[in-house]
Amino acid sequence: MAAPSLAFWFEFASTYSYVAAMRIGALAAKANVAVQWRPFLLGPIFKAQGWDTSPFNLYPAKGRYMWRDVERQCAELGLAFRRPDPFPQSSLAAARVALVGLDEGWGEEFCRAVFRAEFADGRNIGDAAVVADVLCALDVAPEPVLARAQGDDIKAELRRQTEEAQRLGLFGAPSFVADGELFWGNDRLEQALRCAQLGSSMTIRTSS
Amino acid sequence: MAAPSLAFWFEFASTYSYVAAMRIGALAAKANVAVQWRPFLLGPIFKAQGWDTSPFNLYPAKGRYMWRDVERQCAELGLAFRRPDPFPQSSLAAARVALVGLDEGWGEEFCRAVFRAEFADGRNIGDAAVVADVLCALDVAPEPVLARAQGDDIKAELRRQTEEAQRLGLFGAPSFVADGELFWGNDRLEQALRCAQLGSSMTIRTSS
Repeated sequence: MAAPSLAFWFEFASTYSYVAAMRIGALAAKANVAVQWRPFLLGPIFKAQGWDTSPFNLYPAKGRYMWRDVERQCAELGLAFRRPDPFPQSSLAAARVALVGLDEGWGEEFCRAVFRAEFADGRNIGDAAVVADVLCALDVAPEPVLARAQGDDIKAELRRQTEEAQRLGLFGAPSFVADGELFWGNDRLEQALRCAQLGSSMTIRTSS
Repeated sequence: MAAPSLAFWFEFASTYSYVAAMRIGALAAKANVAVQWRPFLLGPIFKAQGWDTSPFNLYPAKGRYMWRDVERQCAELGLAFRRPDPFPQSSLAAARVALVGLDEGWGEEFCRAVFRAEFADGRNIGDAAVVADVLCALDVAPEPVLARAQGDDIKAELRRQTEEAQRLGLFGAPSFVADGELFWGNDRLEQALRCAQLGSSMTIRTSS
């Protein structure tokens, strides 16, 4: 039997992806589940359903609620939280660098640091200098990484990630895939880990 | 200090309102929180943001996910679940009768029975005969109730409920209001109960 594993699909601009990224390490370690970090872009997925920005901007009541809900969730978890300005931020550069980092072994740390810069420190991750600062803080030399992130291979890899997300039926972030089951939202992380551990057939009866 | 209380806003056509309605009684009793059951209609709220049906119908990927997610949630909770046809069902008649019942003392039982008829037994709650059957099973004579439910007082009361929901910033169901805080979704029931017990100031630090 394969070791239990879970794909963690996230978007750097997404508030609830921040919360999930800060939680997933400890929970997955405790559950003995290996996590694949899968950055992708929500923009093309939103565009395909006719949205040109975050639904939290398009639907003001939903947006007002989300900001308060994330604030409460972070307070309960003891996580710092600051509302990013602008929102959503441009996550393209950070997502490409994350793919380089996941290939080179410093990816998860980079992802958490980007989320912290954006949602705890109020920095603009769309600014290449901020991404460079995050790399420096991790003792990764920025220049070669930023150059590789601009290369055709990484650009194509991020497009493939986003296309795979769409193919898997993802419509928001964070999402988790375990044992062929899709789970959406930070709230589903625990259930997704149970599914990764035990398999969907053991945890979830299917109807008829 | 006032006894802890929570307003439970629900829509009979809503899948996650079904799950919350089946869970809230035992959890609120354990937490010693009084629950006000507040039926309302999502239709006018969706219409105000340009939707003429459920977002689960408008956005197919979200819809496909929701059906599987509700099925999994119900399986984990040991709740029967059957996908209603049509979806969403017309909930107007049931919501009006629920207001009569909440005034006459059999409202909560009626609400749970309507949800079960729709989501466990696969009956169409838009059919007046189904609502009458539910009343009969509760030993409530249907005729006077259905007559009162068609009266101007109850019609106006349901409109007022829906307007109040909109004023409170509700944009989906189920929602909970405790200590001035809005919580959206079955997943937030436990947090809403904690807020009702302790007050938002004790559970939730606010930023700056």
